[in-house]
Amino acid sequence: MKKNYIVLGLTAFLLLAGFSSSYAATNVTEPTHFSYDHQDEWEFVSGKMQSPINIVTSQAVKYKGSDLTLKYDKVGTSVVDDGHSIQVGLRGTAEIDDRTFSLKQVHFHAVSEHTINGKHFPLEGHFVHEAQDGRKAVIGVMFKAGKANTAFQQILDAAKSNASGEKGIKIDKLDIQKLLPANLGYYHYLGSLTTPPLTENVEWYILKQPVELSQKQLDEFYQYYDDNHRNLQELNGRTVFIKS
Amino acid sequence: MKKNYIVLGLTAFLLLAGFSSSYAATNVTEPTHFSYDHQDEWEFVSGKMQSPINIVTSQAVKYKGSDLTLKYDKVGTSVVDDGHSIQVGLRGTAEIDDRTFSLKQVHFHAVSEHTINGKHFPLEGHFVHEAQDGRKAVIGVMFKAGKANTAFQQILDAAKSNASGEKGIKIDKLDIQKLLPANLGYYHYLGSLTTPPLTENVEWYILKQPVELSQKQLDEFYQYYDDNHRNLQELNGRTVFIKS
Repeated sequence: MKKNYIVLGLTAFLLLAGFSSSYAATNVTEPTHFSYDHQDEWEFVSGKMQSPINIVTSQAVKYKGSDLTLKYDKVGTSVVDDGHSIQVGLRGTAEIDDRTFSLKQVHFHAVSEHTINGKHFPLEGHFVHEAQDGRKAVIGVMFKAGKANTAFQQILDAAKSNASGEKGIKIDKLDIQKLLPANLGYYHYLGSLTTPPLTENVEWYILKQPVELSQKQLDEFYQYYDDNHRNLQELNGRTVFIKS
Repeated sequence: MKKNYIVLGLTAFLLLAGFSSSYAATNVTEPTHFSYDHQDEWEFVSGKMQSPINIVTSQAVKYKGSDLTLKYDKVGTSVVDDGHSIQVGLRGTAEIDDRTFSLKQVHFHAVSEHTINGKHFPLEGHFVHEAQDGRKAVIGVMFKAGKANTAFQQILDAAKSNASGEKGIKIDKLDIQKLLPANLGYYHYLGSLTTPPLTENVEWYILKQPVELSQKQLDEFYQYYDDNHRNLQELNGRTVFIKS
């Protein structure tokens, strides 16, 4: 058994880099020092992949992943004011990179959590998905002031009917497509949940095209929440990808 | 703005559970308490998804993910003794759940890091992959004593020729298929790298069928490393899946 060696991991990395030149490196392997005899001393590195972030569009790298295919059902649902946002229980599946994710819920942040080139949007919707094995993917939708949005109005109306009860308010046939833009092109990066427990390695897909709702609807949402967004987090060398 | 609320997250979770009954829950949402005014106090939960683990086959849940499709090239490669294992630089791609991963390197642990129903194998090979966005997937191969393995012999021969230099030893046409079993059925779970920095949310695919190498070859490997395996880690409620 060899002990207390200085790993030639960096050397190995450089050596191997030549074998995978077509892939953008998002993590740089650095030389590490560890011994199998002292596993209790091993350091666990985490907290470097947090969300939200500022997306600098000029630095986004072309992504080879597939288009998003969203199959959300137009069905009865429930709206709950959970103390941190207005949350909508929805059902449906998303095909992301050809894998099937189950839609768990949708909720909203004011102002937007992510920024695009340093600019906040007035509202950001998070469509939270989970795969069978627990992998999480969130599709983020930016909202901007414009025409009134009938689906968002259904949610506001439910919130008005005292949705802070435990069971929330049931609504019929929410037309979820109206909460999504026509173009599903996105920015993609690996981040985290934006509320505790801030779990990392969440796949983020921030849609490029914003969706309109009226200023009146925004103001109505702000009566419930006008500042439920997490501060921007450091990128820490992560790559942001773009898929048109 | 609402502050210091007790979240009805658990209620919402129970409410939503009915919408996704076909999915096994690997993470239970618990009520959390947080305020957007005191983000510096938010707790970051991590370290609960570590590897390796003991796989209890009777508790494995049928996995809906796709079969593995491995397209590893039979090409010249390099073998490096990095101080923690014998590491082989390889090129190739793996189609995992219909996504493309790039093979970065292969290395070996003695005895096996994962156990199957509490039992170690004499050796475990790790095929380390990375996707374009940095997602990591490791395919684990268990080795058992039996017939000599010509590909593993090529690696041992290279290791004998002083592979601890910075550049390692080049070898021609390693027949990597001989390091893989005929049946690519697997156990799957979300874990971590098994050496520092122990990064979490690594996708693990432990192949069910072991590959043979001779006792002489095992003994030869043990001259380099006979105890380079991390201790078993707690499952912490994670589900292990099985794909036949």
